[in-house]
Amino acid sequence: MVLTGKEIEEHNSRESCWVIVHGKAYDVTEFLPEHPGGPKIILKYAVRSISKRHVDWHTANGQLQGKDATEEFDPIHPPDTLDKYLDKSKHLGDVDMGTVKQEEKEADPEEQERQDRIARMPILEQCYNLMDFEAVAKNTMKKTAWAYYSSGADDEITMRENHSAFHKIWFRPRILVDVEKIDFSTTMLGTKCDIPFYVTATALGKLGNPEGEVVLTRAAKKHNVVQMIPTLASCSFDEIMDAAEGDQVQWMQLYVNKDRAITKKIVQHAESRGCKGLFITVDAPQLGRREKDMRSKFTDVGSSVQNGDSTDNSQGAARAISSFIDPALSWKDIPWFQSITKMPIILKGVQRVEDVIRAIEAGVQGVVLSNHGGRQLDFARSGVEVLAEVMPVLRERNWEDRIEIYIDGGVRRATDIIKALCLGAKGVGIGRPFLYSMSAYGQPGVDRAMQLLKDEMEMNMRLIGCSSVDQLNPTLVDTRGLSMHTTGVPSDTLGLSIYDPLVNPKEKAKL
Amino acid sequence: MVLTGKEIEEHNSRESCWVIVHGKAYDVTEFLPEHPGGPKIILKYAVRSISKRHVDWHTANGQLQGKDATEEFDPIHPPDTLDKYLDKSKHLGDVDMGTVKQEEKEADPEEQERQDRIARMPILEQCYNLMDFEAVAKNTMKKTAWAYYSSGADDEITMRENHSAFHKIWFRPRILVDVEKIDFSTTMLGTKCDIPFYVTATALGKLGNPEGEVVLTRAAKKHNVVQMIPTLASCSFDEIMDAAEGDQVQWMQLYVNKDRAITKKIVQHAESRGCKGLFITVDAPQLGRREKDMRSKFTDVGSSVQNGDSTDNSQGAARAISSFIDPALSWKDIPWFQSITKMPIILKGVQRVEDVIRAIEAGVQGVVLSNHGGRQLDFARSGVEVLAEVMPVLRERNWEDRIEIYIDGGVRRATDIIKALCLGAKGVGIGRPFLYSMSAYGQPGVDRAMQLLKDEMEMNMRLIGCSSVDQLNPTLVDTRGLSMHTTGVPSDTLGLSIYDPLVNPKEKAKL
Amino acid sequence: MVLTGKEIEEHNSRESCWVIVHGKAYDVTEFLPEHPGGPKIILKYAVRSISKRHVDWHTANGQLQGKDATEEFDPIHPPDTLDKYLDKSKHLGDVDMGTVKQEEKEADPEEQERQDRIARMPILEQCYNLMDFEAVAKNTMKKTAWAYYSSGADDEITMRENHSAFHKIWFRPRILVDVEKIDFSTTMLGTKCDIPFYVTATALGKLGNPEGEVVLTRAAKKHNVVQMIPTLASCSFDEIMDAAEGDQVQWMQLYVNKDRAITKKIVQHAESRGCKGLFITVDAPQLGRREKDMRSKFTDVGSSVQNGDSTDNSQGAARAISSFIDPALSWKDIPWFQSITKMPIILKGVQRVEDVIRAIEAGVQGVVLSNHGGRQLDFARSGVEVLAEVMPVLRERNWEDRIEIYIDGGVRRATDIIKALCLGAKGVGIGRPFLYSMSAYGQPGVDRAMQLLKDEMEMNMRLIGCSSVDQLNPTLVDTRGLSMHTTGVPSDTLGLSIYDPLVNPKEKAKL
Amino acid sequence: MVLTGKEIEEHNSRESCWVIVHGKAYDVTEFLPEHPGGPKIILKYAVRSISKRHVDWHTANGQLQGKDATEEFDPIHPPDTLDKYLDKSKHLGDVDMGTVKQEEKEADPEEQERQDRIARMPILEQCYNLMDFEAVAKNTMKKTAWAYYSSGADDEITMRENHSAFHKIWFRPRILVDVEKIDFSTTMLGTKCDIPFYVTATALGKLGNPEGEVVLTRAAKKHNVVQMIPTLASCSFDEIMDAAEGDQVQWMQLYVNKDRAITKKIVQHAESRGCKGLFITVDAPQLGRREKDMRSKFTDVGSSVQNGDSTDNSQGAARAISSFIDPALSWKDIPWFQSITKMPIILKGVQRVEDVIRAIEAGVQGVVLSNHGGRQLDFARSGVEVLAEVMPVLRERNWEDRIEIYIDGGVRRATDIIKALCLGAKGVGIGRPFLYSMSAYGQPGVDRAMQLLKDEMEMNMRLIGCSSVDQLNPTLVDTRGLSMHTTGVPSDTLGLSIYDPLVNPKEKAKL
Repeated sequence: MVLTGKEIEEHNSRESCWVIVHGKAYDVTEFLPEHPGGPKIILKYAVRSISKRHVDWHTANGQLQGKDATEEFDPIHPPDTLDKYLDKSKHLGDVDMGTVKQEEKEADPEEQERQDRIARMPILEQCYNLMDFEAVAKNTMKKTAWAYYSSGADDEITMRENHSAFHKIWFRPRILVDVEKIDFSTTMLGTKCDIPFYVTATALGKLGNPEGEVVLTRAAKKHNVVQMIPTLASCSFDEIMDAAEGDQVQWMQLYVNKDRAITKKIVQHAESRGCKGLFITVDAPQLGRREKDMRSKFTDVGSSVQNGDSTDNSQGAARAISSFIDPALSWKDIPWFQSITKMPIILKGVQRVEDVIRAIEAGVQGVVLSNHGGRQLDFARSGVEVLAEVMPVLRERNWEDRIEIYIDGGVRRATDIIKALCLGAKGVGIGRPFLYSMSAYGQPGVDRAMQLLKDEMEMNMRLIGCSSVDQLNPTLVDTRGLSMHTTGVPSDTLGLSIYDPLVNPKEKAKL
Repeated sequence: MVLTGKEIEEHNSRESCWVIVHGKAYDVTEFLPEHPGGPKIILKYAVRSISKRHVDWHTANGQLQGKDATEEFDPIHPPDTLDKYLDKSKHLGDVDMGTVKQEEKEADPEEQERQDRIARMPILEQCYNLMDFEAVAKNTMKKTAWAYYSSGADDEITMRENHSAFHKIWFRPRILVDVEKIDFSTTMLGTKCDIPFYVTATALGKLGNPEGEVVLTRAAKKHNVVQMIPTLASCSFDEIMDAAEGDQVQWMQLYVNKDRAITKKIVQHAESRGCKGLFITVDAPQLGRREKDMRSKFTDVGSSVQNGDSTDNSQGAARAISSFIDPALSWKDIPWFQSITKMPIILKGVQRVEDVIRAIEAGVQGVVLSNHGGRQLDFARSGVEVLAEVMPVLRERNWEDRIEIYIDGGVRRATDIIKALCLGAKGVGIGRPFLYSMSAYGQPGVDRAMQLLKDEMEMNMRLIGCSSVDQLNPTLVDTRGLSMHTTGVPSDTLGLSIYDPLVNPKEKAKL
Repeated sequence: MVLTGKEIEEHNSRESCWVIVHGKAYDVTEFLPEHPGGPKIILKYAVRSISKRHVDWHTANGQLQGKDATEEFDPIHPPDTLDKYLDKSKHLGDVDMGTVKQEEKEADPEEQERQDRIARMPILEQCYNLMDFEAVAKNTMKKTAWAYYSSGADDEITMRENHSAFHKIWFRPRILVDVEKIDFSTTMLGTKCDIPFYVTATALGKLGNPEGEVVLTRAAKKHNVVQMIPTLASCSFDEIMDAAEGDQVQWMQLYVNKDRAITKKIVQHAESRGCKGLFITVDAPQLGRREKDMRSKFTDVGSSVQNGDSTDNSQGAARAISSFIDPALSWKDIPWFQSITKMPIILKGVQRVEDVIRAIEAGVQGVVLSNHGGRQLDFARSGVEVLAEVMPVLRERNWEDRIEIYIDGGVRRATDIIKALCLGAKGVGIGRPFLYSMSAYGQPGVDRAMQLLKDEMEMNMRLIGCSSVDQLNPTLVDTRGLSMHTTGVPSDTLGLSIYDPLVNPKEKAKL
Repeated sequence: MVLTGKEIEEHNSRESCWVIVHGKAYDVTEFLPEHPGGPKIILKYAVRSISKRHVDWHTANGQLQGKDATEEFDPIHPPDTLDKYLDKSKHLGDVDMGTVKQEEKEADPEEQERQDRIARMPILEQCYNLMDFEAVAKNTMKKTAWAYYSSGADDEITMRENHSAFHKIWFRPRILVDVEKIDFSTTMLGTKCDIPFYVTATALGKLGNPEGEVVLTRAAKKHNVVQMIPTLASCSFDEIMDAAEGDQVQWMQLYVNKDRAITKKIVQHAESRGCKGLFITVDAPQLGRREKDMRSKFTDVGSSVQNGDSTDNSQGAARAISSFIDPALSWKDIPWFQSITKMPIILKGVQRVEDVIRAIEAGVQGVVLSNHGGRQLDFARSGVEVLAEVMPVLRERNWEDRIEIYIDGGVRRATDIIKALCLGAKGVGIGRPFLYSMSAYGQPGVDRAMQLLKDEMEMNMRLIGCSSVDQLNPTLVDTRGLSMHTTGVPSDTLGLSIYDPLVNPKEKAKL
């Protein structure tokens, strides 16, 4: 039986709510209260007379499509979502899309300007470094997508500190070393990699590119680096695994579900699919408040206040999609993880030396010193600063080889990678830069971004006087400035913008 | 007997001076020399031919109203002022206001622009943090009211340092702690509070909202936090006490009057009304020079110079209303306070460890490490920096539990509160942000500001890995940057604005 | 015999050169090669067909006046100059000024704009601090005069550091001290002063005010502070002494002449006139290069290059008038000074602790820790920083009372004065702020500037918890930031202005 | 036989490629694959239908000249290049240039604006310091030439740090020293110099001036300073040697060729011509990525992408011309150099104390602490900072006289030179400032730049209280700020430009 638009329109209330996704209808009435993003966003797609002004994160990213929710559904739900979470009985079957009234999109001057900017994008070869991709992405991405990717917690001070922390570390290069042949390959969790970075997990790849995370998979293959698959991917886990080729290695990033049975299923599925590392996120018992993300939804505001929906609007994308995460996760859970998988376990988001020691004692294989890209706790220190705190303590105990230590956050240059390795990291994770290069230029963008890092890496290994990564050591860096939190502190943007500066006396007005 | 405008107009000189307030006439001739704000401001309202150009702080805030002084009187005098300070014999009785010539207000383009800005105010839900309220308040408050609230001493460097000092403190969060249930309630001076802040005392609430401080009382009740009642409130003390509901706890902030009999009366009245803490201000033997406040009066200047009134103009609001404060207050007075009240006594404005020790020895129950919001001595250090100096000394003596230590100044984020508690504070005072949220949005504004702090608090307690405030401790913060006064020093606004920078050679002029 | 313009015009060459000053003619032919400012500037006033484009520092300050050199002569030559330096035989007598062709001044749009700004000057009462006077002076002074007063050496980094150094010192105020009565008077070299600053020596007062330094004399009297008389005053030494009233105390600043007989004459004359202190400048064996001053002469440039005069133009005012200073002055000269005068001798411009010790050993009565207002050696440290280096060393030797220590440079606030006194200075010198207040508002300006300092002083003594200057001590300040030269370093204006910042890729051009 | 344009046009492919340089034709077919700048740039000049849009570094610097490659050839190839590298059999002989079709240059608005700026250049006497020349050069040089000279590695942070490092060093001047006679001459590698700087090697002088490096030779002679001749000069080595006069001393900077026979030939030729020092560059196993240089080629982009040439475009000038440099050069090569020459050997580009010690042990005569003007490894420390690390270690070993230590990078003021000498340098190298002064004003520019340094030197030696360079010592400087890498860190231009700052809520739109 093929359903018609008219039939579906009749189910447009909390009492009976049908929606269309990818040409199929679903009865989500019972699911409404459980939807992590709240019931209202679903109801919107079930109600004909949608207020154009009621824009929230699900919709600001696109144009309203009548009852067809597909365009908004896709970037934030892996394709297997409906199969997984909605009972088969609620799958109502195909819709004759010719009978679905397509709302005409209103001309959007902001979108028109964006399209103009896209038409005048710099060519890919004009991007000489990873920052350049970000500049292009900022100009060409949809505003809400940009806001989701680029935002950080609170004043975004940790987010910016992540990069500027590298600027407090200077080099003490060696000279007159034979650097004709440079080999900057390394091994991470037993996997040989061409260059000591991996693609770290970042959520919602389809906000930047319609293909989503598989674009990164293909680029990682090309450059022989590891990709870490995010729990909150736009693509399904299996799609991303399927996109890998040959012996390409992938890891899994895990938000631990309150329901451990689900967690167990996910972990064991990953292992069975050949995942080579389990990175358990430990810095996000609750996903952070990212005000830029929240604010991006308010470009067109009005009715929401009148109809009492205001509080719902202040939920960012991150929080909407993360209600399943277990805030009770604790050290006591580690043995259980060790019992359900043979994958190496790595704690992602460790932020002080005491916890690195505890991780070693707990027998995990690695830690990522990370603050979640500055998206969780503002004023958390940068990974590289924590690294400089951690390694001397481990060396004192002769524990430096008992665990693999990674950092992520703020890596933009090969010199950043080299600094981390000099200080003792096994490798670094890079996230946003690949999202930006993907968003701006698709896979060729990611490819060039990785190639630029390789070019920089070769150059800078030569210039620091090391022909392989095992030669990198702490005497090659000067970290005296690293612990100073007085300066190099990213500016207090909000605070400065509201400060009303003192002025000198004003002249009298001209007559 | 009802007086007429004509009768009152005849008493418009120093020899005989009558004024109208709230429809009643008063003979203030003998009071003129004692008026803390100076005699001239009163005379202005008694003299018909007022120069529109003679604008000072009393009047810039509104339009001249002929002889009716009500509009200017209200924000800066509690309603019981005339009853308290003017002998009943000088209360002349009701005025037939129909006989009082109302001067027509001139159109004021600046006020018109302000009204336009008010019409386009962001909706309340667009405020995501405490700074946002300040931004809205700056745009929508009357200029002189904004200047009074927002100004600080001298170059406003301490005022700004108060907030930026928190930016020198970074976190060392714990991970893998069960933070499902978060309880950030605490106890201050024996009172259970939902969150470790209190509404600290700030003067002249009616400059921001016609209802004044009672708005804060109601919001404090809603969020179960303590309000400290200011001596210089626009509402009377009893009005603010009366606005409290149920077992709501309030404290009293005290400027000590030169006349100790008055002081005793005030203190004992407060205690009898149920006040639960006496906060004696010790950082203000004289109220500070706040140049932004002073300058705000000079938008329209002229006649004042010709008629010799110039020096009077340079008195800010603060100094005009504070001449009663006793600059001779000293440690010797503490036992006397202890003799007249059973309320806990807290010294507000302590600024170095030596004086904290002395306070403990003097047997007071608490201190507030404070620099009066940067409104008194410029280059006084921030409360949080003094806290970091104080606690190690107390701990060395095992004295850390002999006194409750509070800080105020610059608190804008829950992370600021958490930092203070990690370092040993029992709680923090917050002042201006609630004035700004009240000025911009009334009680809903204050309510939302408090709710945002609670939301941030829950989030950040989780992210730092603590489920209750007693778990907060010094190992969770990195304060290495805190003592560095070289940077993070707020900029020298005036100095920079007058510096004439060096330039390179100029091109010849185009022909 | 009265000379005519025609007669004088005939003597317009190096072979015979006559000039008119104040209605009298002088034959300066033989003096030409000795003129500290070079012969050309004199010849210009002797030559009829003056190129309007040949503007140098002598003339840029005014309009060319035909052969009458008076207007340019006055600000930079004390009135007794011609009597002192030109043999009576060269004084040719009165000129019939009616016969002197007055060149018509061309309309100068820049000067017209300046006059407009003067007409719209803020009223004096709008100046609330010393920076405000500088802002007004910058807007209303002649450009070359402003350049002479405001310029510093090289990149003007020391000049700016002088003030910003105070911003690295923070207070540790005492509370609960009886500060009802505040006495901030002190004694300097035996003289009782109302407030611990003196008016330090600054050159060429008539550039800012036609009356010159006597304006400062009168203001110093009014506020009972000491004035230091500059060697390079526009007024003559005796004029300035004569302007003093009653028991008003003045000191003398001395540039030591290569001809010690002249030096001796000057010193003994000063002593005989009642001067109470001899401040020998020791930081200026050669007067500094001040590029802003040099550059200010080039607004209208042309012929100078063609006629080979270019190098002469690059001499600033300072160097032109200082060729008599002896660069060979050394420690060996101190006993000689002690032999010719009983005035206390103070070395002005000491810059490190080793030289303070040597000064004590040499038996002088005082030192001024100074870098000459940042006008001599760029990257010399601020006086207050040197003070913080000096005092602990002296205290260790118990030498702190063997000498009086002053500082100057950058003092703008009473808090600056208090900081210096806390660290051990006896007093501070203030220079430019009084020049600026004099230039902008004449004597009332200087008067108000001094009164503002007194107002700030009273306030801040109270707020720091001291009722007299002898209570000021090092525990009241926190100087941990003072030695950090990494930040708070004034910006590298020239360097930053020429840096061509990296940019992200450009969009394609719009079609 | 004289060739015609028509004949040459027929050889316009990879199979047969002829080009015209200086009126002579050459067959470069076989040389194409070996051309360090790539074959394409040559082919362009052999192909008639040149795409105007295919602009790369060879051509952006000028207008396309049909098949005549002279204008583009000259700045980057010494005149003896074709003789040296192209077999005589490929020299085809003279061309009748009347038969060569001259392409008409299109009007270039950017070039027209530049010519306008040149017409309005400040006169030379308006340049008061070395930064001023840079400002003029930036305005008047061709954009690509400016980009080549002014660019640095990566974020150009080291490039800027070089100068700002000097700003972290402050003076502790002596007073009362006889400084009438100042002698700042010194000796470097046995050569008496008027002032302790030398003209360091910089590449491609003809980009700034058609005469190239000989301009610097003549200026060096005039001021009696040493010139270091660059390997990558636009003039031939012999031309530069020939330009020297009398006993003028020159040194040689050497990039070591992979073919040691060539290296040996070059070195021994230099020695035979009278070179007095061999400066072996050790910080450039590969020439750096300079993104400003790369980006400057993309002002007019298009066809390059379509025809697959894109990667070639991303090679900067530096890398194109440096493929011969041997990245395998190592400490093992030093004895060989010592065996082939008696010239003193100096390692240029040493960057840490360990390598200075090793250099001493290897028996070389000197080191230059240098990071190659910030053009190689970003975050390499400044030479002056390394100097402050090196000298205390050498002094501890009493090794400070076993080697001559030089620094280069960022020297702009005589105070910079004095700081370096105080810390123990024998002299400093200055590069870009002389290129800029040459580019802007030719030899008079270089002459004035050197004279300004001498003027500043005389002044500042006096002001620091030293009459000769041997009196300069570490007690005269305060270097406490030097090691702080937190601030004074040049800003992260790219990072800051892409940061999307947080904003406060927006007002509603005006209706």
